[in-house]
Amino acid sequence: MKQVKKFDLAHCLLRTIEGRKGAPSGELWGLKYVAKDLFDVAGVPTTAGNPDFAEWHGVPAEDAWVIKALEQAGAELVGKANLHELAYGITGINPHFGTPKNPRDPERIPGGSSSGSAVAVGAELVPFALGTDTGGSVRVPASFCGIYGFRPTHDHIPAAGVVPLAASFDTVGIFAASASLLETVGRVLLRPPVSLPTLALDRVLVESDALGLAEPAGRAVVERARSAFEEMGLCSAEVRTGLLQAAFDSQRIVQAAEVWGVHEQWVIERKPRLGQDVARLLQAAGEIKAGEVGRASAARNAIVRQIEALLAGRSILVLPAAPGPAPKFSVFDDPQATFEARGKILRLTNLASTCGLPVVVVPATKDDELPVGIALTGPKGSDLQLLEVAKKLDERLRTARG
Amino acid sequence: MKQVKKFDLAHCLLRTIEGRKGAPSGELWGLKYVAKDLFDVAGVPTTAGNPDFAEWHGVPAEDAWVIKALEQAGAELVGKANLHELAYGITGINPHFGTPKNPRDPERIPGGSSSGSAVAVGAELVPFALGTDTGGSVRVPASFCGIYGFRPTHDHIPAAGVVPLAASFDTVGIFAASASLLETVGRVLLRPPVSLPTLALDRVLVESDALGLAEPAGRAVVERARSAFEEMGLCSAEVRTGLLQAAFDSQRIVQAAEVWGVHEQWVIERKPRLGQDVARLLQAAGEIKAGEVGRASAARNAIVRQIEALLAGRSILVLPAAPGPAPKFSVFDDPQATFEARGKILRLTNLASTCGLPVVVVPATKDDELPVGIALTGPKGSDLQLLEVAKKLDERLRTARG
Repeated sequence: MKQVKKFDLAHCLLRTIEGRKGAPSGELWGLKYVAKDLFDVAGVPTTAGNPDFAEWHGVPAEDAWVIKALEQAGAELVGKANLHELAYGITGINPHFGTPKNPRDPERIPGGSSSGSAVAVGAELVPFALGTDTGGSVRVPASFCGIYGFRPTHDHIPAAGVVPLAASFDTVGIFAASASLLETVGRVLLRPPVSLPTLALDRVLVESDALGLAEPAGRAVVERARSAFEEMGLCSAEVRTGLLQAAFDSQRIVQAAEVWGVHEQWVIERKPRLGQDVARLLQAAGEIKAGEVGRASAARNAIVRQIEALLAGRSILVLPAAPGPAPKFSVFDDPQATFEARGKILRLTNLASTCGLPVVVVPATKDDELPVGIALTGPKGSDLQLLEVAKKLDERLRTARG
Repeated sequence: MKQVKKFDLAHCLLRTIEGRKGAPSGELWGLKYVAKDLFDVAGVPTTAGNPDFAEWHGVPAEDAWVIKALEQAGAELVGKANLHELAYGITGINPHFGTPKNPRDPERIPGGSSSGSAVAVGAELVPFALGTDTGGSVRVPASFCGIYGFRPTHDHIPAAGVVPLAASFDTVGIFAASASLLETVGRVLLRPPVSLPTLALDRVLVESDALGLAEPAGRAVVERARSAFEEMGLCSAEVRTGLLQAAFDSQRIVQAAEVWGVHEQWVIERKPRLGQDVARLLQAAGEIKAGEVGRASAARNAIVRQIEALLAGRSILVLPAAPGPAPKFSVFDDPQATFEARGKILRLTNLASTCGLPVVVVPATKDDELPVGIALTGPKGSDLQLLEVAKKLDERLRTARG
């Protein structure tokens, strides 16, 4: 058994919610969950992790689509979780509301932007939680907190009533304490716009450049996953997409333009308090030129095509979900080190975001190690299959760990 | 029989090509074709319809992918066809190289941007031709010239070696003198990045807002197509997507950013001669702000999702390919009238472009009428099925015309 020490949950939730028990007939009856504070809950202000956001944006009159769907399925919403301000960051450090501590080591960052949601599950406060993943915001905190995480195919879980960050990348994601629960909640929420026949996922491709970007712990989880896949009868091969840097470069620009499209008006008119990192990113976003966005958009297009061809509707691309264990808070005292750590993380996650592909993160370290997850990326629309494969992989990995 | 009068082919081709007979074993052996002068041919400068483009960009060392593929399939390239400057316009009017005349009425525009390719087929110079379609550049000239046109699913015919306009919208398209040849050439060139199982196309949806944007001749072709589809046993329904204007607005901005991304450097450094309309569009593109592109990109994303859900992998959306017959050249003497005519045309074509969907245009007017085509838009990847449905529709329409 992994050890979650008696745990300080300070800064994990921004508020508790009461009186939101779900329908007793639902398949999630009896399960409590928290939602990142980007999800609208009727009558409750949504902060988006910023102290001035709610005042400007007003109190939502309606629940987000997923909040309603989970209520119908029987789950009970018990809190709104902390996050990286505006969901625009990967560390989870929030200068306004405080930062939730990593449940496996309180000296380390939880990862973000869905920090509080991941910590609530990692600290065994709730069995599952809602987050969002634009550039890695479910996958990275899942990896750092040693829990299961799911980023669906873009637009396959409805995002109505969720504060956007960058709509062409944004997804509603799920954290869970087990691979089985992750699949169950995924089944409840997945609503692909159209259900088309799919191929069977029968091949595993290990992204070899990702191994170069990873620390020893990140490489080790890939090796473990590869062995487990082979035991499962799925043959694996190494591929070098050559696209990790290109996806990072392209997403940085296209995403920034979309973020600025969302926040331009209120940031200019309201002049909200902003953390240093987010203020800097927003300012840079506002200065991007049309031609630059155009070139990044064109580059994205080429990346999507190449990855679609590579996966061919049947392959799982395997990468470490993060370079290694969660860095210590002290790494982020220095702006240059922060910038580098951020880039190192996002180079592993932005490829799937750029292509809108589903990813499941499975913890793959031993119980006495700091957690690192393995990220399984599938073709568009392969979500349910991918969640099943992840469950089987998890069984193998846990058997191997003994 | 429709009448193509003895025809002035001035300005149709920018140059003839010799010595490019195809492989005798290929299925297109014996067929001649022309390519829009955006397609690279080894050793021949590509003008992109601009008098200074080739000098700056150098002579291509290699054929475009489609030129090679057609050669292997036996077809003979005999010329490079005129186009709207940089492919950035829908009229086909080219102030530098002259404008090809519409083969059905020399007082009318050919439509663009693939003007010369459409005219070469419409005037019976060649049985098929290559064009490109970013926002309607195959569909509109096909409709105006009374021929068959195909815009494939985005990225399902490789665009390597083709001068880009806006990569996330650009497609390599085909014109042909018959529905059957259109399908044959389509089969030769279609290379989806991945072949997934598809549903059968079994429903027809008529976009009712499009009828409101059309002239009587445009509405009449939709009525004819609807009757023919019902005779074919495909039931039809009217739908109002409510997205024609939204797609036009979003594409205008995202496309402009991508166009500026392509042309910014050489336009600033080389200061080429530019027609008034293209100069104005490029200037406006350079002035677009990041937030604006971000919002347009997010809007596009929502449109794609809605149309994907509407078509559900099995429906054909039916619109007139153009509001009515080709306007007379005289309409475009006045900038305001030009602007309005352009918008009216693009509101019918930009929805499929925005969503990257395949479209086949079938001539649907009587032989003594000025031509207007019917545009059949299918779900992503339904290209071959759509080409077959178009062939059957065409048989019905021709039988009905007697």
